[in-house]
Amino acid sequence: MKEINSIGIVKSKIFKCTDPIKLSCGMTLDNFELIYETYGKLNKNKDNAVLVCHALTGNQHVAGRHKKTDKHPGWWDSLVGPSKPLNTNKFFVIGINNLGGNEGSTGPKSINPKTKKVWGSSFPIITVEDWVKTQKTLINYLGIQKLSSVIGGSLGGMQALEWNLQFPNEVKNTIIIAAAPNLTAQNIAFNEVARQSIITDPDFQKGNFYTKKNKPKRGLRVARMLGHITYLSNDAMKSKFGRKKQNKDYQYNFNTEFEIESYLNYQGDKFAKEFDANTYIRMTKALDYYDPTKQNKKKLSGVFKKIKSKFLVISFTSDWRFSPSRSKEIVKSLLDNNINVSYAEISAESGHDAFLMSDDHYHEILNSFFKNIFKSK
Amino acid sequence: MKEINSIGIVKSKIFKCTDPIKLSCGMTLDNFELIYETYGKLNKNKDNAVLVCHALTGNQHVAGRHKKTDKHPGWWDSLVGPSKPLNTNKFFVIGINNLGGNEGSTGPKSINPKTKKVWGSSFPIITVEDWVKTQKTLINYLGIQKLSSVIGGSLGGMQALEWNLQFPNEVKNTIIIAAAPNLTAQNIAFNEVARQSIITDPDFQKGNFYTKKNKPKRGLRVARMLGHITYLSNDAMKSKFGRKKQNKDYQYNFNTEFEIESYLNYQGDKFAKEFDANTYIRMTKALDYYDPTKQNKKKLSGVFKKIKSKFLVISFTSDWRFSPSRSKEIVKSLLDNNINVSYAEISAESGHDAFLMSDDHYHEILNSFFKNIFKSK
Repeated sequence: MKEINSIGIVKSKIFKCTDPIKLSCGMTLDNFELIYETYGKLNKNKDNAVLVCHALTGNQHVAGRHKKTDKHPGWWDSLVGPSKPLNTNKFFVIGINNLGGNEGSTGPKSINPKTKKVWGSSFPIITVEDWVKTQKTLINYLGIQKLSSVIGGSLGGMQALEWNLQFPNEVKNTIIIAAAPNLTAQNIAFNEVARQSIITDPDFQKGNFYTKKNKPKRGLRVARMLGHITYLSNDAMKSKFGRKKQNKDYQYNFNTEFEIESYLNYQGDKFAKEFDANTYIRMTKALDYYDPTKQNKKKLSGVFKKIKSKFLVISFTSDWRFSPSRSKEIVKSLLDNNINVSYAEISAESGHDAFLMSDDHYHEILNSFFKNIFKSK
Repeated sequence: MKEINSIGIVKSKIFKCTDPIKLSCGMTLDNFELIYETYGKLNKNKDNAVLVCHALTGNQHVAGRHKKTDKHPGWWDSLVGPSKPLNTNKFFVIGINNLGGNEGSTGPKSINPKTKKVWGSSFPIITVEDWVKTQKTLINYLGIQKLSSVIGGSLGGMQALEWNLQFPNEVKNTIIIAAAPNLTAQNIAFNEVARQSIITDPDFQKGNFYTKKNKPKRGLRVARMLGHITYLSNDAMKSKFGRKKQNKDYQYNFNTEFEIESYLNYQGDKFAKEFDANTYIRMTKALDYYDPTKQNKKKLSGVFKKIKSKFLVISFTSDWRFSPSRSKEIVKSLLDNNINVSYAEISAESGHDAFLMSDDHYHEILNSFFKNIFKSK
């Protein structure tokens, strides 16, 4: 089904924003570029737009392929396409690479127009609030007054939530998957270990490595390996790898001995070649900082008072990075405000990564939610 | 109570073994030294000896202080001392630094007598089986034929179990705490990330850094920070740190922003100054390799057939590194063989680290088990 209903060949576009934007950190960016993709057609009433917010290392390439020969389609291709749950025959779907991102939006490896030099370490830390603000400029540019839906998993779910706090009148439906209202101490701890691995890599050069011979690959590699452990459940690792070895007998050296080691090393190597270290550490900071309760100064239920959209919240039983109990915090605070919310806790073995997979139950729920949105337009 | 019943000032001793020992990896060590400590007195019948096996980064200094001014006592001082659960008025307690260890036993930073140079990277990978074999040489040297008990937590628990497989007639009681019969894929994954962090540190120099200016502190630091996350439960981190910040407002930089970050960085720095990187990676390998089922070639119940000692197995509810279900695998296989086993799953918030703490319920169980051993002698 997946390939039959593929959106086909797609192309990224550039949106150049020349309006200055004030960031959470206090700095003002005079202008910036955002890379985005769209699938399907915006209808006459411009009321069928769905914004897809990406997670930690995601990007604008949500569905389809850039070239016929691309090995993999966009990261949420299982969900987005003709006759797929997020049906591009009905909806106008927007994928975006967030400010500071890795895929071409203005970020640490861009040129700072003021200095004519690469931003590098001087590129600011961007927050979820900043992303939503910049996403809104793109939505305005596309002539959309109100989003039919905003959807995101993990860090993307935080952006979907934030849309409701910053622009409650500009979003009609919100889908939050495998997310949390803020990070736990354990979540922050994993992020900090990843950051320290990168920052203390001698090749990181305090973030100004773009003109140097080496990139801080080894720090980024370890950070990604660690990340992967938290994306998978204990049970998924057990079924997939268990104690399977590479060789019949133990080698008694420090080469990879077990298949799980080989998998992690492969993932780490691949990522370290492709991803920008400055972007990675900033993305983890955006996660750490997000907190609609403003460090418990406000109650989540109180913050949610202004929300007007309809919600679907989805969690996965084996997700220990953003466990179902964190999704329930969101659901509870929505219910406290009599907001229309559906909630599903999907039985899935794959852990946090489940939000990227095409579990039947999960996709049926999304399918039915989007069908209903389309019908009730 | 703790300081009143302290064992007081203690001194480490050296045992020089001149009998060659064949290691699991195939190499033969012609001679080696083990650092150990003893507390209490060996009785006339020499049947009151308790061997304490240490975990990943532990050592021979189990209880008391080396100097009056020592900031901290030995690592299991809460458990071992006069009138403590492992009562040194009754038992002769032996602490040992394992072969390859950090505290003076023959290891990577020792001189290889054959080459007259530091072992460094050429020091072999030592297994749990090797440790038990070398521990037995010390026990023989002390004139003990049969241990009253062998006790250990985590990796120490694996050694306690292995004593029963290698020397079933030489151990009367076994106490296994917060352990597992072998590592899961997730356990191995965390170890591999720690190893990669160390091995890819440019200062590691393939393990031959002893004569160089710098030690591989940054890799070891990240490895320890990661380890700490797995020693604590999610709930313990939440109670202790939550989202508490270092400053009133966000700083929007890469300095430590949250208290949990500051804690981890402190722990990482401290450890990287004190511990040997070559020892650390070898200790994690010993964990990975241990598997009495020989990669499922044998059933645990089958392997346990030869066991003769009485068991106490203890797990902690919030331990996600070695969860109660792993302890239950041991208990079940003991029960399959009609072995006398007591099992307690202690309600504790602190996670894997709970085995080092002095929870009342936990210590009462140990106290009663040891009292009973003493009575039935």
